[in-house]
Amino acid sequence: MSAKLNIVMAQLNLKVGDIDGNTHRVIESAEQARDQHQADMVVFPELTLCGYPPEDLLLRPSMVLRIEQAVSKLAAVKGIDLVMGLPAMGAHGLENQAVVLRDGQVVARYAKQHLPNYQVFDEKRYFIPGQKPCIFECKGVKLALTVCEDLWYQSPAKQALEAGADLILSLNASPFHKDKQSIRYETIRSRCHETGLPVLYVNLFGGQDELVFDGGSFAMNSNGQVAVRADYFTEGLYTACFDTSVKAFDQEIVPELPSLHERVYKALVTGVRDYVNKNGFKGVVLGLSGGIDSALTLAIANDALGAERVQAVMMPFRYTSNMSLEDAQEEADILGVDYSVMPIEPMFDAFMGTLSAQFENTHKDTTEENLQSRCRGVMLMAISNKKGYMVLTTGNKSEMAVGYATLYGDMCGGYNALKDVPKTLVFALSEYRNTLGYVIPQRVIDRPPSAELAPDQVDEDSLPPYDDLDRIIEMYVEEDKSAEAIIESGFDRETVYRVLRLIDINEFKRRQAVVGVRITPRGFGRDRRYPITNGWHLGI
Amino acid sequence: MSAKLNIVMAQLNLKVGDIDGNTHRVIESAEQARDQHQADMVVFPELTLCGYPPEDLLLRPSMVLRIEQAVSKLAAVKGIDLVMGLPAMGAHGLENQAVVLRDGQVVARYAKQHLPNYQVFDEKRYFIPGQKPCIFECKGVKLALTVCEDLWYQSPAKQALEAGADLILSLNASPFHKDKQSIRYETIRSRCHETGLPVLYVNLFGGQDELVFDGGSFAMNSNGQVAVRADYFTEGLYTACFDTSVKAFDQEIVPELPSLHERVYKALVTGVRDYVNKNGFKGVVLGLSGGIDSALTLAIANDALGAERVQAVMMPFRYTSNMSLEDAQEEADILGVDYSVMPIEPMFDAFMGTLSAQFENTHKDTTEENLQSRCRGVMLMAISNKKGYMVLTTGNKSEMAVGYATLYGDMCGGYNALKDVPKTLVFALSEYRNTLGYVIPQRVIDRPPSAELAPDQVDEDSLPPYDDLDRIIEMYVEEDKSAEAIIESGFDRETVYRVLRLIDINEFKRRQAVVGVRITPRGFGRDRRYPITNGWHLGI
Repeated sequence: MSAKLNIVMAQLNLKVGDIDGNTHRVIESAEQARDQHQADMVVFPELTLCGYPPEDLLLRPSMVLRIEQAVSKLAAVKGIDLVMGLPAMGAHGLENQAVVLRDGQVVARYAKQHLPNYQVFDEKRYFIPGQKPCIFECKGVKLALTVCEDLWYQSPAKQALEAGADLILSLNASPFHKDKQSIRYETIRSRCHETGLPVLYVNLFGGQDELVFDGGSFAMNSNGQVAVRADYFTEGLYTACFDTSVKAFDQEIVPELPSLHERVYKALVTGVRDYVNKNGFKGVVLGLSGGIDSALTLAIANDALGAERVQAVMMPFRYTSNMSLEDAQEEADILGVDYSVMPIEPMFDAFMGTLSAQFENTHKDTTEENLQSRCRGVMLMAISNKKGYMVLTTGNKSEMAVGYATLYGDMCGGYNALKDVPKTLVFALSEYRNTLGYVIPQRVIDRPPSAELAPDQVDEDSLPPYDDLDRIIEMYVEEDKSAEAIIESGFDRETVYRVLRLIDINEFKRRQAVVGVRITPRGFGRDRRYPITNGWHLGI
Repeated sequence: MSAKLNIVMAQLNLKVGDIDGNTHRVIESAEQARDQHQADMVVFPELTLCGYPPEDLLLRPSMVLRIEQAVSKLAAVKGIDLVMGLPAMGAHGLENQAVVLRDGQVVARYAKQHLPNYQVFDEKRYFIPGQKPCIFECKGVKLALTVCEDLWYQSPAKQALEAGADLILSLNASPFHKDKQSIRYETIRSRCHETGLPVLYVNLFGGQDELVFDGGSFAMNSNGQVAVRADYFTEGLYTACFDTSVKAFDQEIVPELPSLHERVYKALVTGVRDYVNKNGFKGVVLGLSGGIDSALTLAIANDALGAERVQAVMMPFRYTSNMSLEDAQEEADILGVDYSVMPIEPMFDAFMGTLSAQFENTHKDTTEENLQSRCRGVMLMAISNKKGYMVLTTGNKSEMAVGYATLYGDMCGGYNALKDVPKTLVFALSEYRNTLGYVIPQRVIDRPPSAELAPDQVDEDSLPPYDDLDRIIEMYVEEDKSAEAIIESGFDRETVYRVLRLIDINEFKRRQAVVGVRITPRGFGRDRRYPITNGWHLGI
C-alpha cells in the first residue's frame, strides 16, 4: 500500500493590506485543512499575508514588522505544514518570499527569482530577486518552492530538479484575462515536460481594484495532465492527493473550462462584488438609460450584490425616447431593484439660464450634451453621498478608448464593470446573461446604440461601426500595431487615423476615470501608462 | 597658448512623443551652437528625440523606426559633434542610449547602465541595462558618455576613468523637487572627487504632465567647483569652455541658487504653462472663491499665460461672505483678468427640488456641501467646453491628502498647480509672490481658511491646525513613518490616527484627481502607487 501526501490548495479571497484579517483566514483554513481534509500541508497564494498587489504599502518600513507579528501568531497552528507567501527582508533587501511554517518554526524560506515588471506588475520597484532553489521534505517527499513568475522561465524548475525535488509548489497571484488559463496550462506543462516533475499551482481568488484573480488552482502531473483542478471564481480548500511511491497526484475528474463568456461575466461580477464589499459600501446606484451598457451593468450589479442592494435611476431629458423609458423600467422590474425616474430638465435649464451671458454669440455644440450628462452625474453622486451607495459607471472599453464619455458626467462613480469590455463583447455578454434567465429586453440588444444627447442621435453617426472600431482599438491599444500596420490589415486610412487620434488625445479622460475590471491583456489601468502631454500622433 | 574645446549645453524644452518637433529643435540648436557659439560639440538632455518620460510609447515597435528616421535627418548637420539621447535596440533589447553623431555618422554609442525604477521612474519596464563604458575623442580630449542615474552610482564614473577619460558627459532628464539641486551637486561632486575627472551635466527644461524639469545644467571641475551654470527654469544654449591642456573648464561667474520659494513658484508656473501650451488650450478658466488657494492659482496662471488667457469666475452661494466677494473681485482687478460673478442658487435649488423625494427623512450632511461644489464644477466645465479654456483646479496637497475636496466638484479640471503644495507652503508662496508685486490681498492671507460650504465654517473645525496637519502628512506620505513614529515625534494619538485614516481612505479621490506639478520627493502622482481597496489601517 502506497503512502499519500495530502496537500490542500487554499484558494482564498484575501484583502490587500489587511494583515490581521488575512492571518485569521490562514489560521482558520489551516485548521480546517488539517481537521476536515486530513491534510499534511496547506499551500496558500503568493504574498498571502499582505494580499496582492500591495503596491507602495511595500515601501512602508512597518510592513515587515507587521508581517513578523503575524507569523508569530501563526506559530499557534500545529500538526500541518503551512506554505505561504510574505514580504521579508533578505540579505540585500526586501524579498517576495515563500516560507514553510511547521509547528511554529520556519523550516524553509525561498525568495522569488523572477520579478515581473511589465503590464500591471511593478515588482522590481519593491523586491530584490532571489538566486537559489529551496527544497524541504515532508513525509519523505522533497518539495521545491517557487513563486508565480518563476515558472514562466525555465531556470527555477531546472534548479529544483537539480536540487533533488520530487514536486514543485507554485504560489501564485495570477490575474485573470480572457485568454489566461490556457496560457497558464501551456506554461506549466512546459515545465513539467522539461523537468519530469509534477507541479502544484495555487492561485488567489477575488477582486482587488482593477484586477480579478480567478482561482482555478490545479495539480499537474509530470506528463502534463491536470490531475485536480479547483473551481474558478470561488474560494475553497481543494485537496490534491500525492502518491509518494509513484510520485504523482491521484487523478480526479476535472471539469471542463467554462466558456469565454461565462469566465468574463464571472470576472465582472467578482470585480464589482469585491470592490463594493471590501470598501464597505452598502450597495450601488446607477443610471439606467435604456441602452445596453447600463442594462448589462445592472445585471452584473444584481448578480454581484443582490437586488436589494441595487438602486436604478432613469434621468430622462427631451431627447430620451419612449422606448428607452419603457426598457429601463422593464429592466428594473424584471430584477426587482429600486427604481425611480427623475427628469433633468430643471437643472439643465437652470445652468443654461445662468450661462447664457457666457454663451452669447456661440453655437450649440457638445457643451450642451456634456451638460446633460453632468446633471445626471451630479444627481447620482448626491444619492450616493446621502445613502452610502457607490455609483457604478456604465461606460465600456470602446468609449473609454475614443473618449466617447463625459468627464464628471457619465464617468462619475466609484467603479466601472465594463471598463475593459469592448462594445461588441457587451452585446455578446448580454446575450450570454439572457441564457441564464431573461433580464435584458431583446429590444435593448437589437436597437442601434445611441447616447440620446441630441435628437435622433446614434453612436455610428460619430464613430465607425463597432465591429471595425473594436478591432482597430484592439490592434492599436492591445497589440501596439502602428497606423500603417492597421491600414494594411484592411481599414481605410482616414478611419484609422481618426480613431488613433481619438485614442491619443483622450488620455486625459482615462486618467481621471474610475477603476474597473481588467479582462484583456491590456486594460486602461496600471497596464497602459501613457503620457497625457504627447506629440506622438502623426496627423493625417 | 592652450587649445579650447567649446561645448554647448543645449538645455531645451522638448515634448514627449513629438519626434519630428524635437528633431527640428536639435538641428536648429546644433546649427546655432556651431555658428553663433563656435562650439565643437553640443550636448542634449537624456532621450532627446522622444522626450522624457515617454512611458509606454516605448513599447510601440514603431518608436525605434521613427527614431532611426530622425537620426537620418540629423545627418545633414555637419561640422559639430551632436551628443544626444535616444531609445534604440541593443543586442538584448531596448536601451536608453547616448550617441555621438559626427558629420552624419554615429561615432559612439553608449547604453545607460543604471535604470531607475523607483519614485516616478519605471525604466526597468522598458530598458535593458548597458554594461560598458564608452569613450570618444574630440580635439584630443577623451570624453566618456553617461546617462542620468549612472552618476548616482560609483561604477560608471570609475569605468570612465579606467577607460582613459578626461571628461565625463552626463545627459539628464532630472525632475525638479524642492531639494533636488543641492542633492545633484553633492552627488556629482562625489564622482569628481572619486575619479579626479570633471563632469558636464546637461538637464532638460520644461513641464511634462506632473513633472517639471528645472534645467540648471552645469560644468563641474574635478575639484568639485561649478565652473559654468545654466539658468534655472529657462531654455537656452550655454557654452562651457574646456581647456584641453589643463583639462578643466574655464571658471565663469556662477549666480547663486534662487531661494526655495522662487524655485517652487517657478516650477508651478512652468508646469501650468507647458501643460496648457503643449496640449493646445487657448487659456484657462478657474473659480475664485476669495480664498488663498484660488488667489495663488490665479497669480500662477497669470504669470504662466498672461492675463488675457485667464478667465476667473466667482460662484457665490448663501454661505459666501461679502469679504470673499470683495477679495475675489480685487484679485481679478489687480491682474486685469476677465471676471464674472455667477451665483449657483438656481441650480442648487433645482437639484434639491428633484432630489427631495430621495432625501425624505434624512438630515443635512456633506451631501449638500458637495452639491454646491459640483454646481460650480459643472459651470466651469461648461465654460471650458464652450471656449476651449482648460479648467485649472485649485486644491492643495493638504486637501488632496485628507480628501478635503469634492470629486466632480472643485476637483473638476485639467491641471492642478498646487496639487503637491501643502497649505503652509501656499501661504509662504503667496507672501513670496506679493514681494514681486502685490497681487494677493493681504486679508486673503490673514483670514482663517474656510470652504464656505456651511454657515461660519472654517477648515480647522474639521481638520487639525495646518502646521500640524502638514507635518503629519509629510511624515506619513513622504517619509513612510508609522503611526507610532509620528506619535512619538510629539502629536497626540487621536489626531494622528484620524489624519492617517483620512489619508488611507481617500485614495479613491486622488486616483481620479487631475495631474499637477510635483515639487516634493513624493507627490500624489506616479510616485505614490497605493491600492484603493486597502485594509492597512490599524483603526484607533
